Amino acid sequence: MIPVQEALAEIKRGAEEILVESEFVEKLKTGKPLKIKAGFDPTAPDLHLGHTVLLNKLKQFQDLGHEILFLIGDFTGMIGDPTGKNVTRKPLTPEQVQENAKSYQEQVFKILDPARTKVVFNSHWMNKLSSADMIRLASNHTVARMLERDDFSKRYANGQPIAIHEFLYPLIQGYDSVELEADVELGGTDQKFNLLMGRELQKAYGKPQQTILTMPILEGLDGVQKMSKSLGNYIGINDSPKDIFGKLMSISDDLMWRYIDLLSFKNLTEIQAWKDEVAGGLNPINIKKDFAVEIVARFHSEELALQAREGFENQFKKGEIPEDIKEVTLTVEDEGIAIANLLKDSGLTVSTSEALRMIKQGAVKMDGDKISDRNLRITSGQQHIFQVGKRKFAKVSTI
Amino acid sequence: MIPVQEALAEIKRGAEEILVESEFVEKLKTGKPLKIKAGFDPTAPDLHLGHTVLLNKLKQFQDLGHEILFLIGDFTGMIGDPTGKNVTRKPLTPEQVQENAKSYQEQVFKILDPARTKVVFNSHWMNKLSSADMIRLASNHTVARMLERDDFSKRYANGQPIAIHEFLYPLIQGYDSVELEADVELGGTDQKFNLLMGRELQKAYGKPQQTILTMPILEGLDGVQKMSKSLGNYIGINDSPKDIFGKLMSISDDLMWRYIDLLSFKNLTEIQAWKDEVAGGLNPINIKKDFAVEIVARFHSEELALQAREGFENQFKKGEIPEDIKEVTLTVEDEGIAIANLLKDSGLTVSTSEALRMIKQGAVKMDGDKISDRNLRITSGQQHIFQVGKRKFAKVSTI
Repeated sequence: MIPVQEALAEIKRGAEEILVESEFVEKLKTGKPLKIKAGFDPTAPDLHLGHTVLLNKLKQFQDLGHEILFLIGDFTGMIGDPTGKNVTRKPLTPEQVQENAKSYQEQVFKILDPARTKVVFNSHWMNKLSSADMIRLASNHTVARMLERDDFSKRYANGQPIAIHEFLYPLIQGYDSVELEADVELGGTDQKFNLLMGRELQKAYGKPQQTILTMPILEGLDGVQKMSKSLGNYIGINDSPKDIFGKLMSISDDLMWRYIDLLSFKNLTEIQAWKDEVAGGLNPINIKKDFAVEIVARFHSEELALQAREGFENQFKKGEIPEDIKEVTLTVEDEGIAIANLLKDSGLTVSTSEALRMIKQGAVKMDGDKISDRNLRITSGQQHIFQVGKRKFAKVSTI
Repeated sequence: MIPVQEALAEIKRGAEEILVESEFVEKLKTGKPLKIKAGFDPTAPDLHLGHTVLLNKLKQFQDLGHEILFLIGDFTGMIGDPTGKNVTRKPLTPEQVQENAKSYQEQVFKILDPARTKVVFNSHWMNKLSSADMIRLASNHTVARMLERDDFSKRYANGQPIAIHEFLYPLIQGYDSVELEADVELGGTDQKFNLLMGRELQKAYGKPQQTILTMPILEGLDGVQKMSKSLGNYIGINDSPKDIFGKLMSISDDLMWRYIDLLSFKNLTEIQAWKDEVAGGLNPINIKKDFAVEIVARFHSEELALQAREGFENQFKKGEIPEDIKEVTLTVEDEGIAIANLLKDSGLTVSTSEALRMIKQGAVKMDGDKISDRNLRITSGQQHIFQVGKRKFAKVSTI
């Protein structure tokens, strides 16, 4: 085991908040492996880099010798939304839960060590609770304090209905910490209320209280909104090497440092060295490439990462893409923008009919690949390099 | 069966509200015995005339051929107040529940016909509900609508804590109607919110909706606050014939008509005849005596009721108590007023020391009985006739 202060410094890196730090130090000092809880939805997972901010922190705990409790909240997932108002929360069958759990494991074990990861399902203990147990659980919190939670307070203030069972869900999430006897619980900053609930309930049930550690929410490729599949501004961990590499190369230099802070496994000294080089005049694109290689290698292999880099560089070497490429930002509707409109709006063609003609002729490329679908739509949160004919280029960001 | 309109008129007598009356008429028209639900706390019962307003209405339904579901809410009673803040709501054991239920039956069967009364316990079905069932139940109502309930809205506005399980209790009460498939539910006007919950949940669970019928809350002997044991302004149905008779004789003439409306089994024609007699010059005390006889006979016997009347009248005949007795009203603290202060404040003695001397000499009587305890305290909501020596009398009401 490494010294406590050293372990603490590693764990604090990138973390938003640790509550209560002094208690956490005491736990580290015992030298015993700690139980580190993190909860996940039982819905079909399609993990992106945003999720890995938390997974990386879990991996760090593993590397320090601790045990990860990878909790799948299947109990409430199998209930779904009883009001029937939320179509995206249909009740899951036990089979679906098992399938999703398997898919989770395939993805998270690209980062976590299976040997130190215990996958647990909260239906295991929640199904045993009686209605009376549920009442006792609900007695541990007040309506007023629950309404302080950000999303509830907004909905209440706006007159949007909150069904009473929605007050029970955070309690159940907190109760999981009681059953698991978690020493530490990790979550995004948006989970702070729920993580604190675990602390509170552990106390109410006479257990030692967990430390909570929150991680920041990663911004998407646009650098503004949080990374999310539905916003289209994401890098999936199952994306191809070429896509991961290309998307990472497309982010702004500012966002690059943010991503490096939260996603790179390089230590703080190495990162500082990078920053010094850039301050000394190095083009940040070189750092971006090294970083992109690290990330592609993590989800694929070192070999495929280097291939992706080569492919990317070849575009430039062959002079296919000019270095002083024009940058355009387009605001698009929910349903995205049609490719013909995008080409016209970004000035690559004079009209949509010219755009369609060029596509038909095979003269339009997106990120180096020929576009053949004239009905293609580009949603918000994306960034691609478009080429029309031999010489017209534009780097188009959609928001 | 009597005609529907006639039954309806009887049922509406004294009732505050029937919701929805047209639905209720349809139910009556079927000619089938209806299931009439009324819920009671599982705590040790000590019924007073206030409770009998509801019981009398239940009896009326019985007389019309319907079935009473006398529901004892033991499920929540056995949970108690899990926050531990409410000392009066300690969890009851199953034995205590059974004992209290027995005591209930001994008391209510002075009014209800045991043959047409089914005593049911909600633990019977509530214990079978799982935590998931509880969540589904909670999904049927919103936080905002629950906060509209009078007591909740006041507590929330005043910053007094409401524990989340308190939101579950009205849902459970309503769910009882689902399980019982109640056709009608009776309750005090203060129960309207909970009774409507039953209607709502029956609909949510795909059952026919119950009619709700609310009864007014009976005022205590003071004619102002509701009759309640803790306020001391009550007539217990286990009180002695002498006490019931005496307390009824002590109420104001206005309050007498209110009591007659809500408590007498005389029909509307007979009551109108009484009113006409008083309008024609009859001293209301005569009506009061007849009414007091009716009530004492209900809980004891005709014979004991007549004896109580005779005892009361003898006090006057022997000239022991003057007819033009002085009436005094004293405002007392929570802990009541000491007898010596009461005698001084009502002008029966010039000082507390004289009062104590007179008590020592056995010269002070309360309602005709000698007072021997010099430390006696009289709490609020009472009315007694005090006598000091041979000639000093006062009728003292405490508020």
